[in-house]
Amino acid sequence: MFPQTDSHGRLRHLLTLEGLPRATLVRLLDRAQEITDGQADDRALAGRAVCTLFFEPSTRTRMSFQRAAQRLGADVLGFDASTSSTTKGESGRDTLKTIEAMGVDAFVVRHDEDGAVAALAAAAAPGTALVNAGDGRHAHPTQGLLDMLTLRQARGDDLAGLRILIVGDVRHSRVARSALHALRTLGVGAGGGSEIRVCGPQALLPDDDTLAGCTVGHDFDAALEGVDAVMMLRLQRERMAEGLVPSLQAYHAAYGLTAARLRRAAPDAAVLHPGPINRGVEIDDEVADGPQSMILRQVANGVAVRMAVLEMLLA
Amino acid sequence: MFPQTDSHGRLRHLLTLEGLPRATLVRLLDRAQEITDGQADDRALAGRAVCTLFFEPSTRTRMSFQRAAQRLGADVLGFDASTSSTTKGESGRDTLKTIEAMGVDAFVVRHDEDGAVAALAAAAAPGTALVNAGDGRHAHPTQGLLDMLTLRQARGDDLAGLRILIVGDVRHSRVARSALHALRTLGVGAGGGSEIRVCGPQALLPDDDTLAGCTVGHDFDAALEGVDAVMMLRLQRERMAEGLVPSLQAYHAAYGLTAARLRRAAPDAAVLHPGPINRGVEIDDEVADGPQSMILRQVANGVAVRMAVLEMLLA
Amino acid sequence: MFPQTDSHGRLRHLLTLEGLPRATLVRLLDRAQEITDGQADDRALAGRAVCTLFFEPSTRTRMSFQRAAQRLGADVLGFDASTSSTTKGESGRDTLKTIEAMGVDAFVVRHDEDGAVAALAAAAAPGTALVNAGDGRHAHPTQGLLDMLTLRQARGDDLAGLRILIVGDVRHSRVARSALHALRTLGVGAGGGSEIRVCGPQALLPDDDTLAGCTVGHDFDAALEGVDAVMMLRLQRERMAEGLVPSLQAYHAAYGLTAARLRRAAPDAAVLHPGPINRGVEIDDEVADGPQSMILRQVANGVAVRMAVLEMLLA
Repeated sequence: MFPQTDSHGRLRHLLTLEGLPRATLVRLLDRAQEITDGQADDRALAGRAVCTLFFEPSTRTRMSFQRAAQRLGADVLGFDASTSSTTKGESGRDTLKTIEAMGVDAFVVRHDEDGAVAALAAAAAPGTALVNAGDGRHAHPTQGLLDMLTLRQARGDDLAGLRILIVGDVRHSRVARSALHALRTLGVGAGGGSEIRVCGPQALLPDDDTLAGCTVGHDFDAALEGVDAVMMLRLQRERMAEGLVPSLQAYHAAYGLTAARLRRAAPDAAVLHPGPINRGVEIDDEVADGPQSMILRQVANGVAVRMAVLEMLLA
Repeated sequence: MFPQTDSHGRLRHLLTLEGLPRATLVRLLDRAQEITDGQADDRALAGRAVCTLFFEPSTRTRMSFQRAAQRLGADVLGFDASTSSTTKGESGRDTLKTIEAMGVDAFVVRHDEDGAVAALAAAAAPGTALVNAGDGRHAHPTQGLLDMLTLRQARGDDLAGLRILIVGDVRHSRVARSALHALRTLGVGAGGGSEIRVCGPQALLPDDDTLAGCTVGHDFDAALEGVDAVMMLRLQRERMAEGLVPSLQAYHAAYGLTAARLRRAAPDAAVLHPGPINRGVEIDDEVADGPQSMILRQVANGVAVRMAVLEMLLA
Repeated sequence: MFPQTDSHGRLRHLLTLEGLPRATLVRLLDRAQEITDGQADDRALAGRAVCTLFFEPSTRTRMSFQRAAQRLGADVLGFDASTSSTTKGESGRDTLKTIEAMGVDAFVVRHDEDGAVAALAAAAAPGTALVNAGDGRHAHPTQGLLDMLTLRQARGDDLAGLRILIVGDVRHSRVARSALHALRTLGVGAGGGSEIRVCGPQALLPDDDTLAGCTVGHDFDAALEGVDAVMMLRLQRERMAEGLVPSLQAYHAAYGLTAARLRRAAPDAAVLHPGPINRGVEIDDEVADGPQSMILRQVANGVAVRMAVLEMLLA
């Protein structure tokens, strides 16, 4: 895999949380918390340019990065490669190199293919940083970071002793993969009662080693017992192969988070969801809008985390 | 209706000109005139973020608000909900709350349903301001303000004694509704020869109390006699039910503003139109581009008025 | 033709390089070189607004101008007239006048019709500058400037003695027309062994006086002999009339720039291409990515040249 650090161990790109040193992860979370507490420098990236380069459309992630770059004083360029007619026949690499030559310091890249962002990073000039804003089913590292920041705010800075439940379509989820890497790095599931539980229909769970070390089950009620946080996933029917798509009613009956179900978790258990939520499918209104919901907090944390990442890569 | 002021009478949102106190209306117009005269503060909203959230596309209104926000030093985010694929299945309320959580201070919202912007305002956090950039046939308050500013520039600050004619498809027009509210608040049609005249084909006039107190007629030539200003409306055939759509030739013959017709109005009567104009349909080139046309002045005033509104809501 | 200078000889618009005085051309190139060397003023256009007004889509040219305006501290507005629904039925002139009234100082205009940008310039207010970002087959002056800047960097500031070869679809190319005007103004082809050579299939060469003074041929290998620079053109099949479209294989065989062919040119001959490149059609990977390729340098120079143009027009 393409290395995201240089020969001095300095982070050059953020492509995945897999293998990211614990110290780097914690430094990013600490800095994001400072930013959340009001310690942002709105001229930190003045005169620098950040380009959102999206080969797969995503309005909310793009806007979150745009807001992060704005709050640091950077110039923002947007390139929606999924609709641009000029790039027909041009490779992603040529598109990146061309925009890079216009004087862009960092690219925020989303792509529908696993590993595509790392491939582009390999082509970037030495001074150019890439942030993976989601590639296929592979990774979505800033989502993983904002999930960890949210868990820290809900449950204290040390996550090591917690029981965390991830629910739903883990098979197709880069969000889940990045969360799993971060949770493990931060010591969740390393014993002492701490656990990463994963729950979902068999067809929507990965059959590789993604879930190594996790407690895997298909009974949502049982899995909820005593957990400190529930990380719900979006049912992404657009990513599923024919035959995998469950009926919404059946899915909700088995894996929808209702207020009644949530009472099985620890008191004040945090509820997370990467959004956009399918109300009444994987989560009920009463939970999504209830006091334990961290969903909007996650969105706010997303901007802070992305600011911390851009700062670290470009400062 | 959702209140646009807080418990201290301070304006929190601008949703409609209906019921807006005269003092607030005049303060906005006075400030917009100051801005027009060069007294803008290009750092007034530095570090603040304004998001244009359009559920119905409108390039020119969006750009006018964008320019207004830029001139005040605000960061601008744009969300075109009419084309975003990520919001499929997400409610407008969830979209608003999500972007709000990214750190947005004001939303400029356009929607194709009457009252939709007020409904979103009800969901906004206490510190978030909403500006209605047009909702259905209901209201377009900044258009009403810019029309009033333009009338003041053309005819003096006190509009109370004037005779104003509104022509065309009032039934489908939020522009006309907002103008009517503002004109009444500023004392037009309150006697002493002052009048609000409304003229158009019966099928394009509203059959509710929208026109209460107005002099209503269907003869354009008669209605033009001696008026100080003519406010033309755009023939919006895309908003009309089947059977209401008139032929362009017939419409022009009866309600097209020609140079000959304009001579029936007072000398130097001002001609207004919200744009984009249908040349040769509701207005002839000779009038649209003539010395009495305020059409481009209205566009310039639109930016000034929107700056005044954003300043008042966010300062 | 609409004049691009005012009565004092000052440049008001940049519509074409044809007839642009040598001193003005050289001043723009000198300033762009200074900017490339780090002497840009990031507040030069603070408070000014630049609008990209594209009646024909082009992501890369639009982004290059956007980056140029950003680097000078200008506010940027974008209007994609090719997709806006609000401009249906509105003329380009009305669109320009409307946006101009919002307080825009310069327009960067692309249009698919020859001369359309000059026609819009004729309608602009005295204080408004227009930059032609490509109109039909007519002109693309900033591309011509960036090509000249690139040739100067590759071959020294004085181009007068050089042999330059332009290859490909000159008939449909505004890029070639602007390059030809600039090359002639800078003294290329004025004798002493200096030459402008043009090479391509007969059907893709213009049959008017575009190539006056050039050495025209159809044998690529012969044309390459000893040239100091090769300016490749993009095969724009979308612009070609039925019957003109060559097969890609045949085109590559006759006019594709391969490494072997390039060896016929002078040692270190510079290879230029306006992008986006059709790899394996008009140019091979080995050449496009090789040491003589100036393609990414051209992109970087594009931003510098556009900064110099905006500065000159607005300062």
